[in-house]
Amino acid sequence: MKVAAVQFAPVIGDKTGNAERIVGLIQEAAGHGAEYIVLPECALTGYCFDEPTEPQGLAEPVPGPFTAQLGALTAELGVVAIVGLIEAVEATLFNTAVVAGPQGLVGRYRKTHLPCLGFDRFATPGTEDFRTVAVGEVRMGVLICYDLRFPEAARLLTLQGADLIALPTNWPAPKGSIYPDFIVRTRACENRVYVVAANRVGEERGERFIGRSQIVDPSGDVLAEADSELPQTIFADASLAEARNKRFGTRTYHVDILKDRRPDLYSGLAG
Amino acid sequence: MKVAAVQFAPVIGDKTGNAERIVGLIQEAAGHGAEYIVLPECALTGYCFDEPTEPQGLAEPVPGPFTAQLGALTAELGVVAIVGLIEAVEATLFNTAVVAGPQGLVGRYRKTHLPCLGFDRFATPGTEDFRTVAVGEVRMGVLICYDLRFPEAARLLTLQGADLIALPTNWPAPKGSIYPDFIVRTRACENRVYVVAANRVGEERGERFIGRSQIVDPSGDVLAEADSELPQTIFADASLAEARNKRFGTRTYHVDILKDRRPDLYSGLAG
Repeated sequence: MKVAAVQFAPVIGDKTGNAERIVGLIQEAAGHGAEYIVLPECALTGYCFDEPTEPQGLAEPVPGPFTAQLGALTAELGVVAIVGLIEAVEATLFNTAVVAGPQGLVGRYRKTHLPCLGFDRFATPGTEDFRTVAVGEVRMGVLICYDLRFPEAARLLTLQGADLIALPTNWPAPKGSIYPDFIVRTRACENRVYVVAANRVGEERGERFIGRSQIVDPSGDVLAEADSELPQTIFADASLAEARNKRFGTRTYHVDILKDRRPDLYSGLAG
Repeated sequence: MKVAAVQFAPVIGDKTGNAERIVGLIQEAAGHGAEYIVLPECALTGYCFDEPTEPQGLAEPVPGPFTAQLGALTAELGVVAIVGLIEAVEATLFNTAVVAGPQGLVGRYRKTHLPCLGFDRFATPGTEDFRTVAVGEVRMGVLICYDLRFPEAARLLTLQGADLIALPTNWPAPKGSIYPDFIVRTRACENRVYVVAANRVGEERGERFIGRSQIVDPSGDVLAEADSELPQTIFADASLAEARNKRFGTRTYHVDILKDRRPDLYSGLAG
């Protein structure tokens, strides 16, 4: 199957314009044969809001008008798209990514790990268990940006059978480079899953984002990486069989990276 | 404090010769001012044993003759040394690393995650909880080689206050390159700890080891990396204050990588 990460520059506050850009970019990626298409965190709204009240007018119910538009598009194109937006549940806002496929809206994920005092102060942390979403033959996990810093999250999705982790993200300069430098590769390799990370480019209110969207395979090899400044959609072929094979080895060295875990010794991680 | 990783080529089966090499290398590292000195996995014995019975005659009780020799040395030099060996508990063998300091032997760790059918078939997996060892002001965690592939292990040591993770290792060619390429950096960064990884070089029974011993700081930056083929001791300065500060940020982006965890959602990791 062909996967894509769409790197672009959403315009803060311009929901109508961003929705048009998103539709055009998904059409373009589908035109190149992509079947699973990941877009950035808060792609619909922009991200650098200073106050919790500020993005209220931009937030969407899920399901809602934007997911109806997105679901109609993915149904028409026969693709799966994962798009970041701000979700409103009455007055509460979540930093959410929605998953739409040939049947329309099939899932949403609310960002769980939020920076203490940073940009995500507009959002309330998600409180639901990490769950995969099955779309066609693929079992997908969705995480958002800072979630990937915590190995626990990608591991829990893997234990539920994730083949691929979609990561809508907004990696900021300069610290965000830890993700494309080594964290994305480690999460893919330690779990033997594909990671499709779609970052944004451009600036918002003095904060610059570093691009470098990545598609990494279950060995930790980078299949594609986007430019650090320009909008760009990257593509790669992903193999379900590869992601589902957790064993590898040579003549003398055989491992199974899930069976070799020692959950009997891991109780200190939860609580 | 000054830390060191000692990369050399132990000779399989030559316990007496390896012990002499280990003593000489620790003296040399201490002569260069190193206070915490990490040596490879199975440094005393070699590693590529084909049968569980084969290394029986090389295995050591802990405490035992080798740890007495090592503890006398570290007491004399006023340093801490972490050395890999094969530990015998009656007929049961463990792939163990011992920790000796100015007071002699202060700890041991038995490798917990073992490749299914690979080289470690001579060893029985450790079953003890992950525990840090306090030596002087430093709280150390010890892991061995394949243990580092599992984010759970380094995380548990960090949650117990580890400042530094010592990793005696035997990274094989070619797959072992995932560790110095990205896994060591991720473990250091995701936990904000120092990782001091001492690999071996040379060949044993047709298996080649890839060197590239590394010292990585809590930001994930590589402070020192050794050659891929030659014996070499690498050094770096480590700051306890740096490892104990789990917060960082810019004007708008402030995180605490332990407090931002969501252990309420992590129960699926244990069992």
